[in-house]
Amino acid sequence: MIKYVYDFSEGSSDMKALLGGKGANLAQMVKEGLAVPPGFTVTTEACLRYLEEGREFVQSLWIDVETALERLERQTGRTFGSGPEPLLVSVRSGAPISMPGMMDTILNLGLNDDTRSALAEMVGDDRFAWDSYRRFIQMFGNVVKGVPSERFESILEEVRRNKGVAFDHQLDAEALASLVKRYLSLYEEVTGETFPSDPWIQLREAVEAVFDSWNTARAKTYRKIHGIDDSMGTAVNVVAMVYGNLGGDSGTGVCFSRNPADGEKKLYGEFLVNAQGEDVVAGIRTPQPIGELAKVMPDIFEELKATADRLEVRFKDMQDVEFTVERGKLYILQTRTGKRSAEAAVRIAVEMEKEGLIDRNEALGRISPEQVERLLHSQIDPNCVPEVISRGLPASPGAAVGRIVFDPDEAVAMAEKGESVVLVRPETTPDDIHGLYAAKGILTSRGGMTSHAAVVARGLGKPCVSGAEDISIDLEGGRLLTEDREFLKGDFITVDGSTGRVIAGEVPLSLPSISDELNTVLDWADEAADLQVWANGDTPEDAKRARSFGAKGIGLCRTEHMFMAEDRFPVMQRMVVAESLEERQEALDDLRAMQVEDFVGIFREMDGLPVIVRLLDPPLHEFLPKIPELDKRILEADSAGEDTSKLRKMKSRAESLREVNPMLGFRGCRLGIVYPEIYGMQIRAIFDAMSSLPDVDLKVEIMMPLVQTKGEMALLREMVESIASEYPQGSLSYLVGTMIELPRAALRAAELAEDAEFFSFGTNDLTQTCLGLSRDDVESKFMKEYVDKGIFPISPFHVLDRDGVGELMAIAFERGRKARPDISIGICGEHGGDPKSVAFCHSLGLNYVSCSPFRVPVARMAAGWAALGLIE
Amino acid sequence: MIKYVYDFSEGSSDMKALLGGKGANLAQMVKEGLAVPPGFTVTTEACLRYLEEGREFVQSLWIDVETALERLERQTGRTFGSGPEPLLVSVRSGAPISMPGMMDTILNLGLNDDTRSALAEMVGDDRFAWDSYRRFIQMFGNVVKGVPSERFESILEEVRRNKGVAFDHQLDAEALASLVKRYLSLYEEVTGETFPSDPWIQLREAVEAVFDSWNTARAKTYRKIHGIDDSMGTAVNVVAMVYGNLGGDSGTGVCFSRNPADGEKKLYGEFLVNAQGEDVVAGIRTPQPIGELAKVMPDIFEELKATADRLEVRFKDMQDVEFTVERGKLYILQTRTGKRSAEAAVRIAVEMEKEGLIDRNEALGRISPEQVERLLHSQIDPNCVPEVISRGLPASPGAAVGRIVFDPDEAVAMAEKGESVVLVRPETTPDDIHGLYAAKGILTSRGGMTSHAAVVARGLGKPCVSGAEDISIDLEGGRLLTEDREFLKGDFITVDGSTGRVIAGEVPLSLPSISDELNTVLDWADEAADLQVWANGDTPEDAKRARSFGAKGIGLCRTEHMFMAEDRFPVMQRMVVAESLEERQEALDDLRAMQVEDFVGIFREMDGLPVIVRLLDPPLHEFLPKIPELDKRILEADSAGEDTSKLRKMKSRAESLREVNPMLGFRGCRLGIVYPEIYGMQIRAIFDAMSSLPDVDLKVEIMMPLVQTKGEMALLREMVESIASEYPQGSLSYLVGTMIELPRAALRAAELAEDAEFFSFGTNDLTQTCLGLSRDDVESKFMKEYVDKGIFPISPFHVLDRDGVGELMAIAFERGRKARPDISIGICGEHGGDPKSVAFCHSLGLNYVSCSPFRVPVARMAAGWAALGLIE
Repeated sequence: MIKYVYDFSEGSSDMKALLGGKGANLAQMVKEGLAVPPGFTVTTEACLRYLEEGREFVQSLWIDVETALERLERQTGRTFGSGPEPLLVSVRSGAPISMPGMMDTILNLGLNDDTRSALAEMVGDDRFAWDSYRRFIQMFGNVVKGVPSERFESILEEVRRNKGVAFDHQLDAEALASLVKRYLSLYEEVTGETFPSDPWIQLREAVEAVFDSWNTARAKTYRKIHGIDDSMGTAVNVVAMVYGNLGGDSGTGVCFSRNPADGEKKLYGEFLVNAQGEDVVAGIRTPQPIGELAKVMPDIFEELKATADRLEVRFKDMQDVEFTVERGKLYILQTRTGKRSAEAAVRIAVEMEKEGLIDRNEALGRISPEQVERLLHSQIDPNCVPEVISRGLPASPGAAVGRIVFDPDEAVAMAEKGESVVLVRPETTPDDIHGLYAAKGILTSRGGMTSHAAVVARGLGKPCVSGAEDISIDLEGGRLLTEDREFLKGDFITVDGSTGRVIAGEVPLSLPSISDELNTVLDWADEAADLQVWANGDTPEDAKRARSFGAKGIGLCRTEHMFMAEDRFPVMQRMVVAESLEERQEALDDLRAMQVEDFVGIFREMDGLPVIVRLLDPPLHEFLPKIPELDKRILEADSAGEDTSKLRKMKSRAESLREVNPMLGFRGCRLGIVYPEIYGMQIRAIFDAMSSLPDVDLKVEIMMPLVQTKGEMALLREMVESIASEYPQGSLSYLVGTMIELPRAALRAAELAEDAEFFSFGTNDLTQTCLGLSRDDVESKFMKEYVDKGIFPISPFHVLDRDGVGELMAIAFERGRKARPDISIGICGEHGGDPKSVAFCHSLGLNYVSCSPFRVPVARMAAGWAALGLIE
Repeated sequence: MIKYVYDFSEGSSDMKALLGGKGANLAQMVKEGLAVPPGFTVTTEACLRYLEEGREFVQSLWIDVETALERLERQTGRTFGSGPEPLLVSVRSGAPISMPGMMDTILNLGLNDDTRSALAEMVGDDRFAWDSYRRFIQMFGNVVKGVPSERFESILEEVRRNKGVAFDHQLDAEALASLVKRYLSLYEEVTGETFPSDPWIQLREAVEAVFDSWNTARAKTYRKIHGIDDSMGTAVNVVAMVYGNLGGDSGTGVCFSRNPADGEKKLYGEFLVNAQGEDVVAGIRTPQPIGELAKVMPDIFEELKATADRLEVRFKDMQDVEFTVERGKLYILQTRTGKRSAEAAVRIAVEMEKEGLIDRNEALGRISPEQVERLLHSQIDPNCVPEVISRGLPASPGAAVGRIVFDPDEAVAMAEKGESVVLVRPETTPDDIHGLYAAKGILTSRGGMTSHAAVVARGLGKPCVSGAEDISIDLEGGRLLTEDREFLKGDFITVDGSTGRVIAGEVPLSLPSISDELNTVLDWADEAADLQVWANGDTPEDAKRARSFGAKGIGLCRTEHMFMAEDRFPVMQRMVVAESLEERQEALDDLRAMQVEDFVGIFREMDGLPVIVRLLDPPLHEFLPKIPELDKRILEADSAGEDTSKLRKMKSRAESLREVNPMLGFRGCRLGIVYPEIYGMQIRAIFDAMSSLPDVDLKVEIMMPLVQTKGEMALLREMVESIASEYPQGSLSYLVGTMIELPRAALRAAELAEDAEFFSFGTNDLTQTCLGLSRDDVESKFMKEYVDKGIFPISPFHVLDRDGVGELMAIAFERGRKARPDISIGICGEHGGDPKSVAFCHSLGLNYVSCSPFRVPVARMAAGWAALGLIE
């Protein structure tokens, strides 16, 4: 004989397949000796037989159910279907894996006209009994028989209107009694049946409804999508109802075993005396803090505390416990792992490790990389309700408050006066860079997640909302317009780069903190991890920050970013517009001195750690203003009677450099090969800096961008070697390597490795080319539609596309390592800071990931998680 | 004892490794009984031992050389080094494979003061003897001893100046005698040695010089590049000199066994009585046509004719023969396969096959795909010397003559009047399409090989020169300017799209012809080939032309090209700027009717053959004017007081559709997924057309562009199926497939093949993405530099990059076939018409290549060649 019904006392948490998740956990609590309301579970096997054989099976099952229910009557001292103390039960589905589409809970099952009266007498509250009854009819009618909720709600609303009250709890017993009558008529009208007054019929229909819900369309789809076995089935839990409203020795509450906001080890929560859980929700009475319980019911408080402690020991994590006290007896209705703030997560993990409750790796598993990220950015105070005026793309996380400024120069001026400003532009260009530095936050109405504003902001760790297309920006009028509001220059605004919200006015922020506990945890992560975390950094400040965040090297120093500074930009432009080699060389000589200065600063900061310097990458026209902008300037200069020859020269150069698809154009090492004097300058600047730092432990690596042929790599390597030979022999020690950022480079990795001593995956460009997607164009255009339609699970610029880009990486990795077994291989695209992408890099066997300094802690945690198998 | 010296009578043409190519062929002719001047060959083995052991080896070798030379004396009845009839010889290098850098020929070896006098007496021409002597000194001095040619030339020039003559042949014996004296002094001055008067020393030094030339830097580099074995060595040929200037019974000439211009089977060439070969070059006397020889020396003519026939039989190809008649005896100095025009190649191959001289496959091997190409385009008459005013890119082959027109409308107007016009524009856009149709040829000053003008021109089979950057175009003034010339609207100009030349005025053209012979040969090619040749075609006219050129299907019908016609463009623009679905649907309904008409025409033309229709591919903004153009039009309309609202709407739409990298943007199936109504219209138009052609054998295939995920392909397939279900059941038979034009698509081919019934490689886009190269940008920018530096052997847009793009194709092919064994796989990029790329497609195992109709014959020949292993 197969056993289809298990009393809670017969199960345990390792019987999930048979009892479902909920049933197994309730059983486990009983096993632990905790005061759980008695009940039993009908197994998943019963469900499967029912689905196969239909209703007839239930008859044979029913003997077991009756036996279980009789035991429940004995355990509770109540009777199912009659007074004086009627036994009411809740019926809940409980599959081995929780999933949507399954049947909702039915409470108060067992009520009919008779037992309602008995209940009223038992609890001494006629209104409560009527209310319980009408709720039961509504739940049963809707969940078991499919009577639309709206039909019940519209009757309820009508009764409220007739009574002239606003809330349900203001309805008196009489009104609720009439409501019950009307509910019963509605039930009959819709189902064509009388409402079953026999509790046994109620129970059987509820159990069958749970079984049937295993095959709802929604549940089936969910299982299909998530690859869950259809032959698992669901269990049904039948639990005795308990009441917290049976007098001063009853009550109800919720508590956490530790503070979920800050992690302090202290019981945290609230309770109400003589109340049902719903009373808290209805907001009639204000709950008391859990500490008060020690005064009101000292024994119960101690028991609850002991219970919370035992649950922590049992489940080895902070618990969120629902409890009810019925006539002086504590019942634990539910316990589950408590949700917590990122800050609390860190403190709890570190303290539990100290307490010996969990080991370091378990502690690591308690803090997700996403939580680490949240700790590193200002957030909008969760207690405030902001006035959202627009939504754009969450381009760079964190929140910032400041006065609206439209002009970069003005942003600098105001910032110098100590004002916090938010720079608001249709889009930004390298010309605006000083404004981006000066602002606390950035808002653009155009551009995607990887627009200039977004990329620079993430690099700077500044909040940015980009592509907020429903605002319009009137630069000349100095106005920011939404459909119905107008903001002027100087008005306060708040941008939330974590969510994309644009908010009117000043909003309180919670500030970031890197606590000692977080540092402890990140060190553990480093110990667990197989791959290192390096940072992308272009300045000595970046390097310093990267080191302070625990980066083990600079994986990408973008030399072009060094030219974006206000004082250097004009020199760079001189170089770009130069018409002869001599003219260009003159500008290059000036740039060389500047680059030496930068390199000296970075190399010194990174003493003892590797620094990968990438030579010039973007197309030269990126250093010139756009042509319409130049046209405008020429017109202005003309009408002011100024000399326009320089501007005209610049325009003519901009025109000759113009490209249809700049991403696929004259950039990267192609520049270095056609204009060897440019790369030559940069290589000399690196060697000059190295030569001037005899006391620094230098680990410099020179990286070539956009390489894809053996010819390019060999030629560039020769260039470096030939320049190195200009310096005293043996004085320079360096590596030469390449980005792998084109599909062809990945495929030809073996021959590139002949000349390249290291590879670094540039997954931004590799994604653009492998998928034929321009980051700048698609993010704000059709990507949303593609993600909505499920074509991409998420933008491949946020989480690495393993099937496409990932295979190219795997190919390159394998071929590169085979050709040069000791080759160092890392990644320096923006994916380097995304936890799932870090996990993929771990699985490939990369040496390191490199990301924005601000994401280093996130990546360190992700690397630890990946090594522990917590993300894949 | 190893035999180091072979008399010509001892060798044969299969001894190339030992005797070198030249020696083996001379020996073979002797074997055939042909009158070759006697001589012998020093073997490649001797060369190798010399290179190993040095000069000492030559001593042991010399006994054999002396023996051979004695035999030569006997054969010729002349004496080496003395009169009365001195034996002179030529010394030539002859490696098994011909290569540059090897030693040049030395003629007249054996001359010194004594033998010169004897020679003068023997031929009765003192001047001739002096001239032979001074030439010998010059050749020996330069070739063997490295005395710079310029030094000899400057003395010669001085003597000419002193004598007051312009040409060498005007110098008399006395002057030449003094020249010899000065040459001998120069030799002594530069080398520090007296000129060797002993013919044996002359011979030994010449032989050693040939051996040494095996290791010149140039020869070594050539061998390295071409993977030729260094241990092959070169042979040395020593041949008795014969003289065609010993009287009226002597002469010299060159003849072809068939006419190299038109292929007619008739001796063709010219000769001079009593002359040396050099006399022809010097231009003193005009040679006579070979037919005249029959009158002057009838026996010799017959012998020559018989010889030519025998050589053809022996070498199974048309021969180019050099001959000399010395005192009534014919000597064949050289025979080799004759160069011929493309037209002659076809006729000769077909006729030789008929004659049974060669089989069909051999005949095929005689006509290269490039020759087929030359036959299909007008060419500038090779006899004219055109005045080249600029050079651009050879964007679309063939030559065209016409009047300069700058405006597309005007081009149409003038063409309608019967004028030939060449459309001259800085660059072209879809707005100019009617002008491109009307013009005979196109010239642009900007844009690359794949600019709009170039692509359209190739599609139309019209000559085009693009990117002629040194001309400037003054559209308003109606002038085309070069550095020093000006051409006005209406002036004649000639463009040569095969070479990129721009030529002043009208130049005579030779017109293309597809002869019956060519058709015969192409049919043979089809029989030999493993893959079919289809054509890309967008109109019924294209389809007709494709079929007439032998295409076995339409591999790419670009539906967007259908909208480029003048009357349709505005409707397409209405669709693009539509602000609502309704507005868009209205325009789509109009477009649908037009597309149905096109499809009906194409399907009818291709009755019984497959037609692959590709749905809309380019980004929508390509159908709108550029923004500056719109600004200009708005300004004009404004000042004319016209309504600008439509233009403004267009501009706003153009702005919202603007993309940074349109190639990687919102195009291809991305459009069809976001705007399903657009693809829906196209699919319905296809099905409407099919439904209206009950009597046509339809083989329609619907192709989706830019697909790369299973989600896209599944969704698009569903879209087609759902629309098909609107038509009577069973009435439609079609295939659905996809382009493979993104690296990710290639990698994910297995899952795409689940929904795609065919693949077509779009190698243009696949090259752009795999290599990160924008066709539009790089062709005219750095590609030249890259090719010059050897980074790419040739632009990867002209010949498929096998190492990168090719590997992706191989991956996609293998995965696609594995997932769906009967999947049809072809290529429709521009590479489909390039012979080497066709060969690669053959090696992959593709079902077909599809190319421009005008390239179909070339591709057919290439497919035949590939199957025969003639190209790889």
